[in-house]
Amino acid sequence: MNQIFELTIIGSNSAISTFDRFPTAQILQIQNQLILIDCGEGTQFRLDTFKIKKSAINFIFISHLHGDHYYGLIGLLTSFNLSGRTTELRLFGPPGLKEIIDLQMKYNGATLQYPLVFQATSMNPTATLFANEMFEVSSFPLQHRIDTTGFLFREKVGQRKIRKEKIEAFQLSVDDILSIKAGEDFITSDGQTIPSATFLLEASKARSYAYCSDTKYVEDLVKNIEGVTCLYHEATFETEKEHLAEKTMHSTSKQAASIAKNAGVDRLLIGHFSSRYKDLSILLGEARAVFKNTDLAIEGQKYEL
Amino acid sequence: MNQIFELTIIGSNSAISTFDRFPTAQILQIQNQLILIDCGEGTQFRLDTFKIKKSAINFIFISHLHGDHYYGLIGLLTSFNLSGRTTELRLFGPPGLKEIIDLQMKYNGATLQYPLVFQATSMNPTATLFANEMFEVSSFPLQHRIDTTGFLFREKVGQRKIRKEKIEAFQLSVDDILSIKAGEDFITSDGQTIPSATFLLEASKARSYAYCSDTKYVEDLVKNIEGVTCLYHEATFETEKEHLAEKTMHSTSKQAASIAKNAGVDRLLIGHFSSRYKDLSILLGEARAVFKNTDLAIEGQKYEL
Repeated sequence: MNQIFELTIIGSNSAISTFDRFPTAQILQIQNQLILIDCGEGTQFRLDTFKIKKSAINFIFISHLHGDHYYGLIGLLTSFNLSGRTTELRLFGPPGLKEIIDLQMKYNGATLQYPLVFQATSMNPTATLFANEMFEVSSFPLQHRIDTTGFLFREKVGQRKIRKEKIEAFQLSVDDILSIKAGEDFITSDGQTIPSATFLLEASKARSYAYCSDTKYVEDLVKNIEGVTCLYHEATFETEKEHLAEKTMHSTSKQAASIAKNAGVDRLLIGHFSSRYKDLSILLGEARAVFKNTDLAIEGQKYEL
Repeated sequence: MNQIFELTIIGSNSAISTFDRFPTAQILQIQNQLILIDCGEGTQFRLDTFKIKKSAINFIFISHLHGDHYYGLIGLLTSFNLSGRTTELRLFGPPGLKEIIDLQMKYNGATLQYPLVFQATSMNPTATLFANEMFEVSSFPLQHRIDTTGFLFREKVGQRKIRKEKIEAFQLSVDDILSIKAGEDFITSDGQTIPSATFLLEASKARSYAYCSDTKYVEDLVKNIEGVTCLYHEATFETEKEHLAEKTMHSTSKQAASIAKNAGVDRLLIGHFSSRYKDLSILLGEARAVFKNTDLAIEGQKYEL
């Protein structure tokens, strides 16, 4: 009955798909909200494969306009239309994204039957993009070959866990517990009102997820992601190929781990693997040597944060 | 050792993918040439699944700008670039297609490293789009919600089969047979030159393939596809849903079969199935009642024409 804050990897490969790995896409679930982060080609099909309810996605964040991060978006937007969506969709991405969508919709001869609210991202040092009662999202600049932003997702309030001894003392049902966690006072069978705070432990630290899609190694990145619960950082190459990382403005897994270490994050996920690696253990090993709590971003896998 | 004229179905579903069927794409192989016809999202991944060598595709024909027929194109063009293609690619499609590609390439920040020769299709009654020594391609208008063309692919010369008795008489090797079929004279071990025609049967009828992607039932279509070896015609609905076919400017499988019958084609393939049909037997049955030599376009299946 914890509040959900969970990441599912949909695609983890860079550029050309290979070894059954596909271009970048992730689903972040915060409570009942599904947030899609980047949307490489075929994302809509892979959401079906992983039995993720596409219609529950109300937020999409696109980091940059390289195809392996957004070519699947127009198909998903079109499918929403064909399946009768009427719910508002919030879309965040580089300014050109809207122009690309509009042009394709123009030739499609159709209009979207649901509100698509587009908000352009920018390369400003940090910018709050969105906030509701559950979470807030900000962007920060990465350094890649074209304008690219990272995203930081942060719970508004930490989880409030119930005091176990109270469950038994008051014979609380599951529904009671959910109501109390939502801040409602408890009314006993003899009509006594007991404040919800009586039942709850102190709120834990609000969880956070930082997403750094495509970027060269930039020490300066650390200040934007300090102490996050989970950092996803691209790790396209092994150290021996650092010259390729520099040339293409990507990172090695060791560099990703250095960022994680210096930012004092709880956990690191690495992804955006080069098509040259069938076996990813070299990337994982080099990262773990620097930052122990590192895992590979594996497609279809869920990570509770 | 026949000359190859073979169709592989890559995607056969309409609009939203379902039941493991994907949006429209086909590969027509004429001798050593691979021609891609329409390119729905995910086509590049499915070409990998079916072990079709993407780099051998030198021609792409796009029928219209509904997403389920072209959203996979930009990804394929980008992947060609990333994999170091330098060979010319000929692309045929509606005028807006080039504008869409150019806009996405602009924001991509990259330029194609291979010549992409685009030729716009038109709604002219018939137009020859391309011809080389092996085949020629023309387009003809379909009637759909936006400008849509069908395509007709025709071998230049019929197959020339070798006279079986000559193989034994002259002890011909496989290489000899291929040379003779290519029109080269045969030189015997004692230096005698024998004209290739001596070895060959009369050329058979040049084979042809007509592709009618999305269209309402138009009797007038018949004149463009008379007597073709194989007609692919969309068959989105069953007869009971004819009102939906009319409304969306699609066809029923019975209507597709009527076109095939009236055009006197040898063979009919139906596809572009509505996502409402898991079992396609109703569509096949209704078509076969009108035109017996009908088959379903099944993904991954090859059809020798």
